[in-house]
Amino acid sequence: MARKPSIPKGTRDFSPQEVARRNHIIGAIREQFERFGFQPIETPSFENYDTLMGKYGEEGDRLIFKILNSGDFLKKADATVLQDKDSAGLTPQIAEKALRYDLTVPFARYVVMHQNEIDFPFKRYQIQPVWRADRPQRGRFREFYQCDADVVGATGLIQEAEFIQLYDRVFASLGLNGVTIKLNHRKVLSGIAEVIGAADRLTDFTVALDKLDKIGREKVEAEMEEKGISREAIRKAAPLFDLSGEASGQLAALRGLLAKSPTGLQGVEELEELLDLTRQMGLEAGKCVLDVTLARGLNYYTGTIFEVAAPETVQMGSIGGGGRYDDLTGIFGLRDVSGVGISFGLDRICLVMEELGLFPETLDRALDVFCINFGPEEARSALRLVMRLRSRGIRADLYPNDAKVGKQFKYADKRDVPFVVLIGDEELRKGEFTVRDMRGGGQQSYPLDAWEDFADTLSA
Amino acid sequence: MARKPSIPKGTRDFSPQEVARRNHIIGAIREQFERFGFQPIETPSFENYDTLMGKYGEEGDRLIFKILNSGDFLKKADATVLQDKDSAGLTPQIAEKALRYDLTVPFARYVVMHQNEIDFPFKRYQIQPVWRADRPQRGRFREFYQCDADVVGATGLIQEAEFIQLYDRVFASLGLNGVTIKLNHRKVLSGIAEVIGAADRLTDFTVALDKLDKIGREKVEAEMEEKGISREAIRKAAPLFDLSGEASGQLAALRGLLAKSPTGLQGVEELEELLDLTRQMGLEAGKCVLDVTLARGLNYYTGTIFEVAAPETVQMGSIGGGGRYDDLTGIFGLRDVSGVGISFGLDRICLVMEELGLFPETLDRALDVFCINFGPEEARSALRLVMRLRSRGIRADLYPNDAKVGKQFKYADKRDVPFVVLIGDEELRKGEFTVRDMRGGGQQSYPLDAWEDFADTLSA
Repeated sequence: MARKPSIPKGTRDFSPQEVARRNHIIGAIREQFERFGFQPIETPSFENYDTLMGKYGEEGDRLIFKILNSGDFLKKADATVLQDKDSAGLTPQIAEKALRYDLTVPFARYVVMHQNEIDFPFKRYQIQPVWRADRPQRGRFREFYQCDADVVGATGLIQEAEFIQLYDRVFASLGLNGVTIKLNHRKVLSGIAEVIGAADRLTDFTVALDKLDKIGREKVEAEMEEKGISREAIRKAAPLFDLSGEASGQLAALRGLLAKSPTGLQGVEELEELLDLTRQMGLEAGKCVLDVTLARGLNYYTGTIFEVAAPETVQMGSIGGGGRYDDLTGIFGLRDVSGVGISFGLDRICLVMEELGLFPETLDRALDVFCINFGPEEARSALRLVMRLRSRGIRADLYPNDAKVGKQFKYADKRDVPFVVLIGDEELRKGEFTVRDMRGGGQQSYPLDAWEDFADTLSA
Repeated sequence: MARKPSIPKGTRDFSPQEVARRNHIIGAIREQFERFGFQPIETPSFENYDTLMGKYGEEGDRLIFKILNSGDFLKKADATVLQDKDSAGLTPQIAEKALRYDLTVPFARYVVMHQNEIDFPFKRYQIQPVWRADRPQRGRFREFYQCDADVVGATGLIQEAEFIQLYDRVFASLGLNGVTIKLNHRKVLSGIAEVIGAADRLTDFTVALDKLDKIGREKVEAEMEEKGISREAIRKAAPLFDLSGEASGQLAALRGLLAKSPTGLQGVEELEELLDLTRQMGLEAGKCVLDVTLARGLNYYTGTIFEVAAPETVQMGSIGGGGRYDDLTGIFGLRDVSGVGISFGLDRICLVMEELGLFPETLDRALDVFCINFGPEEARSALRLVMRLRSRGIRADLYPNDAKVGKQFKYADKRDVPFVVLIGDEELRKGEFTVRDMRGGGQQSYPLDAWEDFADTLSA
């Protein structure tokens, strides 16, 4: 007897119901991506080892899944490395390929490789799985999908305004209202660090500031001091602690604080224009706010930063994020290509929608019509009817053999089929079929050659 | 300067045009799968090493990509194995996971793991990539998609008849006419081996017979002899060399040849019923023929065998195949679950459709309307118009900045946009926008608040 099979830690099987739900979300995202002029690309699941390594920091390098070379991979391996059991030293000798860790680095690689075929500005979207050898926990998996849209080779705040609209339209089309689109600007953060004299402590400063809502001003200041930020700097940053309420007030306060930082003021100006554009365009599913504590991807982004929070009634981290980066493709030798992009967190959006009961009930129904199989002769008529219904786009099926009728009805019930069709010997004699309405009850007969009348009731 | 990046051998980047074409095919397959009552599942990209190894023969084991364990993977490795540079011995010690090699074994694993949640008969489809460390060549890649539909827990020939219809409907909906669906039956092959007394040479016999069309009877017989099949056996098999033309004649000849093999006769009977059912249902895109030389997956299938050949005008191997297997899940300890399934070869179908020019031209167009950007003020009006068009399902875009108008038109041209919208300062003053028809020539102006009139012309 074989051992009961299992799947690797942090991976998942998706049942028909789960696939339908995930495809519902992916479909909504894809539809909006395309309406906004983005075009799909796909890249290989594995890249060359060198393409990925060193692009995500030390932690990232560790979390990248490497693929063992095929064949006699140890042949050329260094004997000393083997003797020392030096795993880190051996890895590049026996693994030339590695699984995609995100969609951004492969996209940068794509742009550089295909730069002569691409018309810039290039608006691409990409919806594919990525893999990370992370410790699994709620909402964090070793295999998960990313849904990214990026524009490269375009400057101007219109792009940023478009991405805010894109977020809004996707969430509106999913019925996921009450999301908060948070904005910040890398130059505002740099400006703050500059004026308070803590440029070297920017990350610590922002991480602490981010906790203001949860732990209060006193503890935030204590944490800042602990991290080596001077009292003087903390005192200078005081206006930040009062930043809340309307964006206009926040912008005014920032303008005061950053008066001596041209960089910081430029950031404030861009945020102001972006918020103005967004106000003018309007939002359906959520609101757009300034959040000066937002600091995702600090080493990476160079302009506007986005993050989307789920509705406040749901406990969940961010369900999307992105920003502008001025040198996406520099790592592969192509300089001065500015990019801006956003990402949707499929798994988390799925969890939020489940919690809020936002999936349409119809998603769970995979079959519109089910035919009972009464025997070989009857089944032929049933199969012909089923094929006709399918040609009209109706999802129809026939039980594969003449099992007991009770068993077949039970099966139809489990599959939640709204209409069951009966073609027994009596129907066959009369040249009819009978339709039983499994929800409303009652049944109705149609001549076999009037099948279109029945089909019409379904597509109506 | 970084090295020019590349991608691993046997993998591919897909451009927007290629993704659109592949999605066109996948969409057609998925649509028919769902109309036929199949439900989607997805399984992880990597499985446990033990789940995959030993399921595809020795050759398969070699072609499976293994994933290197994370962290200090050499720590527990056997020192002797390392010292001997014993790659094969080391592999199971440092790789607990492996990339999916096909969709069938993961499906069997899924059925066994989830048997208590599944309602049998279970009709599932699965469209996901698989990976093989094969030598790349035309139409063969290291990463490629499989599109599988299988039914488990169902007996009866209705299923087989349904799969023939399914093949036909998919190819018809793609406009890929002239395909040939070939049928054979494992029991017919066993019967032949039995009656000619060459049961132990069945594979060699069938491989040789398969070449009849290409190399002629004499050379086929020579090859059979070379492989150790007796002259006596070859003489007895003589009727097979004349099998051609109408299925009814072929069936009669087989019935004579297999008169003393109850197994063989059962196979003939099933083929006869299946061909009869298919004749009754009719086919749109192709024909269905008996091909007694068809022997795919000989060790695997136990009943009907399918294979689809591309239209004769195209040089291409099979573009689909499948069959019935009586013990799919036995490898994971669940006995007596009969299955039958088919697969579509996405990459080859794509190549065939390209060669025959069957992709709709509209697939190459990703944008319906493109707005010229004349400056910040004009762009705001343009963006509002673009957002409105998008809300009507129209794919519309605005150039991200006020680059030279000639450059913007050139971009619109490269993206093959049918309508370019102009909102310059004159239009803005008049409260209008101008639409230029890029194919028919000519242009027309609309009041900005009559944008729906323009939208109507696009959706008409």
